[in-house]
Amino acid sequence: MGSLSEGLVQVLIPVAALVGIGFALLQWLLVSRIRVSAHGQEKGYKERLIEEEEEGVDNLDVTIKCAEIQNAISVGATSFLFTEYRYLSIFVGVFGAIIFLFLGSVKGFSTKSEPCTYNTGNICKPALANAVFSTIAFLLGAVTSVLSGFLGMKIATYANARTTLQARKGVGKAFITAFRSGSVMGFLLAANGLLVLYISINLFKLYYGDDWEGLYESITGYGLGGSSMALFGRVGGGIYTKAADVGADLVGKVERNIPEDDPRNPAVIADNVGDNVGDIAGMGSDLFGSYAESTCAALFVASISSFGISHDYTAMSYPLIVSSMGIVVCLITSLFATDLSEIKNVSEIEPSLKRQLIISTVLMTAGIAIVTFFALPPDFTLFNFGTNKEVKNWHLFFCVSIGLWAGLVIGYITEYYTSSAYSPVQDVADSCRTGAATNVIFGLALGYKSVIIPIFAIAVAIYVSFSLAAMYGIAVAALGMLSTIATGLAIDAYGPISDNAGGIAEMAGMSHEIRERTDALDAAGNTTAAIGKGFAIGSAALVSLALFGAFVSRAGLDSVDVLTPKVFIGLIVGAMLPYWFSAMTMKSVGSAALKMVEEVRRQFNSIPGLLEGRVKPDYATCVKISTDASLREMIPPGALVLLTPLIAGTFFGVETLAGVLAGSLVSGVQVAISASNTGGAWDNAKKYIEAGVSEHAKSLGPKGSNAHKAAVIGDTIGDPLKDTSGPSLNILIKLMAVESLVFAPFFAAHGGLLFKIL
Amino acid sequence: MGSLSEGLVQVLIPVAALVGIGFALLQWLLVSRIRVSAHGQEKGYKERLIEEEEEGVDNLDVTIKCAEIQNAISVGATSFLFTEYRYLSIFVGVFGAIIFLFLGSVKGFSTKSEPCTYNTGNICKPALANAVFSTIAFLLGAVTSVLSGFLGMKIATYANARTTLQARKGVGKAFITAFRSGSVMGFLLAANGLLVLYISINLFKLYYGDDWEGLYESITGYGLGGSSMALFGRVGGGIYTKAADVGADLVGKVERNIPEDDPRNPAVIADNVGDNVGDIAGMGSDLFGSYAESTCAALFVASISSFGISHDYTAMSYPLIVSSMGIVVCLITSLFATDLSEIKNVSEIEPSLKRQLIISTVLMTAGIAIVTFFALPPDFTLFNFGTNKEVKNWHLFFCVSIGLWAGLVIGYITEYYTSSAYSPVQDVADSCRTGAATNVIFGLALGYKSVIIPIFAIAVAIYVSFSLAAMYGIAVAALGMLSTIATGLAIDAYGPISDNAGGIAEMAGMSHEIRERTDALDAAGNTTAAIGKGFAIGSAALVSLALFGAFVSRAGLDSVDVLTPKVFIGLIVGAMLPYWFSAMTMKSVGSAALKMVEEVRRQFNSIPGLLEGRVKPDYATCVKISTDASLREMIPPGALVLLTPLIAGTFFGVETLAGVLAGSLVSGVQVAISASNTGGAWDNAKKYIEAGVSEHAKSLGPKGSNAHKAAVIGDTIGDPLKDTSGPSLNILIKLMAVESLVFAPFFAAHGGLLFKIL
Repeated sequence: MGSLSEGLVQVLIPVAALVGIGFALLQWLLVSRIRVSAHGQEKGYKERLIEEEEEGVDNLDVTIKCAEIQNAISVGATSFLFTEYRYLSIFVGVFGAIIFLFLGSVKGFSTKSEPCTYNTGNICKPALANAVFSTIAFLLGAVTSVLSGFLGMKIATYANARTTLQARKGVGKAFITAFRSGSVMGFLLAANGLLVLYISINLFKLYYGDDWEGLYESITGYGLGGSSMALFGRVGGGIYTKAADVGADLVGKVERNIPEDDPRNPAVIADNVGDNVGDIAGMGSDLFGSYAESTCAALFVASISSFGISHDYTAMSYPLIVSSMGIVVCLITSLFATDLSEIKNVSEIEPSLKRQLIISTVLMTAGIAIVTFFALPPDFTLFNFGTNKEVKNWHLFFCVSIGLWAGLVIGYITEYYTSSAYSPVQDVADSCRTGAATNVIFGLALGYKSVIIPIFAIAVAIYVSFSLAAMYGIAVAALGMLSTIATGLAIDAYGPISDNAGGIAEMAGMSHEIRERTDALDAAGNTTAAIGKGFAIGSAALVSLALFGAFVSRAGLDSVDVLTPKVFIGLIVGAMLPYWFSAMTMKSVGSAALKMVEEVRRQFNSIPGLLEGRVKPDYATCVKISTDASLREMIPPGALVLLTPLIAGTFFGVETLAGVLAGSLVSGVQVAISASNTGGAWDNAKKYIEAGVSEHAKSLGPKGSNAHKAAVIGDTIGDPLKDTSGPSLNILIKLMAVESLVFAPFFAAHGGLLFKIL
Repeated sequence: MGSLSEGLVQVLIPVAALVGIGFALLQWLLVSRIRVSAHGQEKGYKERLIEEEEEGVDNLDVTIKCAEIQNAISVGATSFLFTEYRYLSIFVGVFGAIIFLFLGSVKGFSTKSEPCTYNTGNICKPALANAVFSTIAFLLGAVTSVLSGFLGMKIATYANARTTLQARKGVGKAFITAFRSGSVMGFLLAANGLLVLYISINLFKLYYGDDWEGLYESITGYGLGGSSMALFGRVGGGIYTKAADVGADLVGKVERNIPEDDPRNPAVIADNVGDNVGDIAGMGSDLFGSYAESTCAALFVASISSFGISHDYTAMSYPLIVSSMGIVVCLITSLFATDLSEIKNVSEIEPSLKRQLIISTVLMTAGIAIVTFFALPPDFTLFNFGTNKEVKNWHLFFCVSIGLWAGLVIGYITEYYTSSAYSPVQDVADSCRTGAATNVIFGLALGYKSVIIPIFAIAVAIYVSFSLAAMYGIAVAALGMLSTIATGLAIDAYGPISDNAGGIAEMAGMSHEIRERTDALDAAGNTTAAIGKGFAIGSAALVSLALFGAFVSRAGLDSVDVLTPKVFIGLIVGAMLPYWFSAMTMKSVGSAALKMVEEVRRQFNSIPGLLEGRVKPDYATCVKISTDASLREMIPPGALVLLTPLIAGTFFGVETLAGVLAGSLVSGVQVAISASNTGGAWDNAKKYIEAGVSEHAKSLGPKGSNAHKAAVIGDTIGDPLKDTSGPSLNILIKLMAVESLVFAPFFAAHGGLLFKIL
C-alpha cells in the first residue's frame, strides 16, 4: 500500500476538481471585466456591452459593431450546436439501445450472478448488469462530452470581441484576454471530466460493491460516449467551418479581391461561427474523450491486476490522482503567462505560449514523482495478456513521465514545422515564387517529414512504458501526456479566439494597426492550434494502444500474430480506413464549399450595392448551407467508424478486429500528423508573406502578389486537411478501439460468424 | 509427383523464354519497317531514317525534324542511363561486399559443411558458400535489372518518332506501332527474367548439387539485386523526369503561355528524355524486380517444404512453369490487339487496351489449371512457420488464380478512377471551376478513395492464398498477378511512348490534327500507366508479404505478435517510413524543379529571339540540371530504404525488423496507390478539359481558361506523386523485405545488439 489513505484520496480528487473549476471561474471573471457596450440595444446581461472608460482610440460605432458581430457569432454557434445535438440525441438513443442489446445478449439477458473471470473464486454481478451500466456510462460520457464542447464554445464566443477591444490597448492586453479565455475552457474541461468520472465511479460502486471487475468494465462505456460525441463534433464542426472558410476565401479573397473577414462577404459570419463550433467545441470534446478513455483503459487493466484483486482503492485511483495533480500544476503554470510576466512585443507571443508547455512539463514531472510515491505500494503485479507482470512503483513514474515528455517533444516539433519563425515554413513560402504547384508539393513534403520525430517519440514512449508495465504502462503514459490538458487546451483554444478576434476587428472596420495586432496573435494561434492537434494525435495513439490492449485482454486473446491470415487482412484493411475516412470528409468539405461559392457569387452578382458596402449580405443563407452540409455529411464518416468494429467483430471475429485496430492506429497517426502540419504550415506561410517582417518575406509579398496568391491556394487546400480530416482521424482510431473494448464480451461470445460458417 | 517429367521441364522453360524473345524480335521487326528519314545526315543504321513512300501529308522537313528530335532524346536518355549506371556500379560493388561480409561472418567464414536446418539429418554446404553465392546472385540480379531498364528505354526511344509518323496515317496505325513497341519491351523483359533465373539456378546447382536449401536461399540475392537497381532507377529516373516536366510546365505553359512540348522551351528535351528514363526504364526494372522476388520467395519456401526435401524437380519449378505459361498466354493475347481487330476511332483505344487485360486473365486462368494439374503432385506439404501444412494441388490453382484476378480488379478500379470516361475524373475537372484549391482537394480525396477496393482485393487474395497454402500461397498469388507481366508491361510502356510521340509531333511542328491523334493516344496512355502502377503496387504488396514470410521463417520466428513492445514499435515506425521516403523524393523534385524554372526563365530572358522561335534554346544545360539533381538526390532515399533493415536487424533484432516490414507494407501500399491515382486523375482531368469532347468538358475549357489553369496546377502537383514518390514506394516495401530475407541468417545470429546491451 502507498501511504495515502483511501479517505484522503476520496477528498483530494474532488477538491482538485473543484479548485480547477474555481480557477476557471476566476479567469472568467477577469475576462468579463472587459465590457463591450451596445447602447440602446435590448440584450441579456451577458450581451450587455459597456464601453471601457479609458478607451478612446476608436469611436463608439466600432464598439457597437463589435457587440453586434459577437452576438451574431454566438447566436449562430449556439443554434448550430443545438441543432447538431438534437440529431445526436437520436444517435445516442439508438446506439445506447444497441449497447444494451448486444451486451445483454452475451449471457441471454440472464440476471444470475457469475463467477468472476479474473478475480477467480469470487462471484461477480450478472452480465445483464454490465449491459445496463455500460449503457448508463455511455450516456454519461456523451452528455459530459457535449457539455464540454458547448461550454468551450460559449467561452470562446464570449471572449472574442473582448480580445478585439483589448487589442486597441496593445498586443499584451489582447494576448492576456485571449489566453485567460483559453484557460477558462482548459480548466473547466479538465476539472469537469475528472469530477464526472469520479462521481460516476462512486455511484456505480453503490451497486457493484466489491465487484470491481464489473464496475470498471462497465465504466469504459463512459469513454465510448465521450468519443462518439467527439467524432460527430469534430467531423460536423470541421465540415461546417471549412465549407464556410473555403467558400468565403475562394470568392472573397481570390475572385473579388476583398480582405479576409470582410463584412461584405456573405459567408463571413458562417466562417466565424465555424471557428467556434469546429475548432473549439470539436477540440474540447476530442481531448475530453482522450482523457476519459485513457483513464478508463488504465482503470480496467488495474481492476484485473493486483490493485483490483486486493481492493487497494488508493492504487486503483492512481489515474485520477495523476489528473488531479495535473490540474494543480497547470494552475501554477498559467500564472507564468498571465501574472508573472507580460507580453510587450509581438515576437514574445509564441515564446510565451511555448514556455507554458515546458513549465507545465517540468513541474508535472515532479508532481508525478510525488503522486507515485504516495499513492502506490512499492511492489505490485499488473495484468499482461494472461500473465502477471511484477512492477515497482518507480516503473510507473517512468511510464507517466515518458508520456508527458513525449508530448512536449511532439509539441515542439509541431511548432518547428508550422511556425513561420523556422526554415520549413519559410521554404514553403519561398516555393510560392514559382506558383501554387510548388507550394503544394513543398507543403505536402513538409507534412510527411514532420511525422518522423513524433513517431519516434511515440515509439520510445510505447517501448518504455510497455516494457515496464505492459498495457497499464501505455494507459498511464497517455494520461501523462494528457495530465497537462488544461494548459494544452488553454493554448489551443487561444488560437480560434484570436482568429475570431481578428475577424471581428476587420468586420467592425477597425484600424489597420489593430488588425495587425490580432493577426500576430492569430499567427501564433495557428501554431498553438497545430501543437494542440499534435497533442491530441499523440495522446490518441497511446490511448488507442492502451484500449487495444484492454480489448485484447477482455476478448481473451493472448497474442495478435501478424503471421495469421485473419490478423493480417485486418491489419491491411485497418491501415486503409484512415484514407477512406479522409476521402469522405475532404469530399464533403469540397462539395459544401462549392455550394457556398455558388451562393456567395450569387449574392455578389444579384444584390446591388453589396460590393460597395451599402447593403448587408444575406448571412443566414450561408449559415444554413454550412449547417445543412455538416449535418448531412457527418453521417457517412460517422457510420464508417462506428460500424467497422461491429462488422469486423461480429462477422470476422476478434482476431481480425485486433488487426483492424492495429492497422488503423499505425496508419492513422501518420495521416493525421501530416495532414494537420501541412495545413498549419500553409496557413502560416501565407501569413508570413502577408506580415512581411523579414527581407525574405517582403520579397514575396505584398498581399495580392503572385506568390501571395499561390500561398492563398495552399492555405485553402490546407483547411480541410488541418481542420476536418486530420483532427477527426485521431478520434477514428480511439473510437474504434474503445468501441471494440465495450463490445468485447459480445464478440468473444458470438463473434466471427463468417469464419464459423465457412 | 505430377505427370510432367524433369527432362521435359528442363526443355519447356527455356523454350518458352526463347519463344517470348523471338516474338519480341518479330514485333521489333514490324515496328522497324516504319522508316524515318534524315537525308544528308551522318548516322548509324538505326538512325538512318528513310521517308515512307506513301506518305505525303507533311513535308520532308518535318520528317527530318522528327529524326533529329528522336536522336536527341535517344542520346540524352542513353547518356543519362550510362552515367547513372556508372554510379550504381560503385554501389553494387560496395553492397556486394557488405552482403559477402555479413553473411560470411554468420559462421565466422568457416568452410566446414553444416547439418541442414530443415532437411534434417542431411549435410548442407557451408555458410561461406551462402555468402559467396548470395553475392553472385545479387550481382546477376543487378545486371539483369539494369539490362531490362536499358532495353526498355532503347525500344521506347526507337518507337516514339515512328509512332508520330504513323499518326499521319491515322490513329489506328499509330496505336498499333505504339502497342507493338510496348510488346517488344514486355516480352523481352518477361522472357529475359525467366531465362536468366533459369540459367542461374542450373549453374548454382553445379556447386550445390542436392543441397537445395542452400541453393534456393542464396538465389534470393537475385531478387535483392534486381530490386535495389529498380529503386535507384525509379527514384533517380522519377526525379529526372519530374524536375524537367514540372520546370518546363511552370515556365512554358503557365508563365509564357506556350504549348506543352514546344521546341522553344529549353527543358523540353530533358522532359522527353525523362519519360524514357523514368517511366520506361524505371518501370521495367521495377516489374522485373517483383517478378524475380516473388519467384525467389516461392522457391525458397518450396525448398524447405516437401518439394525440396523430396527433391521433386518438377514441383520445385512450378513458379517458373507458371511464368512460362504466362509468356505463351500473353503472346496469344497480344494478337487480339494487333491482328484480330483494328482501331478505327479514338474512342476504341482504351477499350482495346482494357480488353488485353481481360483476355489475358481469362486465358491465363485456364493456363494455370493446366500447369497446376501437370506439374504438381496431388498432395504435398508446405512449410508454415515451423509446422508443415497439408496442401492439395487444386489449392495452388486457387492461390495463383486469385492473385491473377485480384490484379484484374485492381487494374479496372485504377482505370475507373483515372480515366476521363468516368465520373471521378470528371468531378475533379468540374471542381476546377472554383480554382486550383478545390481541384487539389477533390484530387486528393479521389486518390484516398481509390485505395478502398484494391485493398479489399489484396486482402481477399491474401486471405485465400494464405489460408490454403501459407506463405507459398502468397508467393504464387503474387506470381499469378505477375504472370501476365508481358501484357501489363506492353500496355504500360505504350503510355510514355505515346506521350513522347505527341512531344515529337509538337516539336516537329506537325499539324494540329496529328497532335490531336497523339493526344488521344496519350490520354489512354495515362490510364494504362496508372493501371501498370496499380499492378506494380498490388504485386509488390503480395511479394513483400511472401518475402516477409520467408524472412520470418529464415530468422526462426514462429510468430510476430503485435502485443510485444519490440514488434509494435517496429510496426509504427515502419508505417512512418513511406512518409519519410515520400517527403525526401517530393522535396527533391520540388528543389530540382525550382532550379529548372530558374534556368528556363534565364534562357527566355537572356537569349534574344528564343520566344519567337528564331534561336534554339540551350537544351543541354537543362539536361544537366535534371541529371545532376537526380544523381545527387537519389542517394538519401536510397540510403533510407537500404539502411533501415540493416540498422533495425542489427541493433533491434528480428522481431522489431518484422514489425518494421509489416508496418511499411500496410502503410506504403495505401500511400502508393493514392499518390499514383491522384496524379493520374489530375493529368487526365486536364486532358479532359483540353480535349473538350463533351458539353461538360467544353464548358470548362478551352485551353487557357481559368478552369484549365487550375487543372494545369493539379497536373503539376500530381507529377511527383504519380511518377516519383508513388511508384518508388512499392520498391521500398519489396526491397526492405528481400534485404531482410537475404540478411536473415546474420540477424538471427548476431542481431538485436541494443536490446542485448540493455
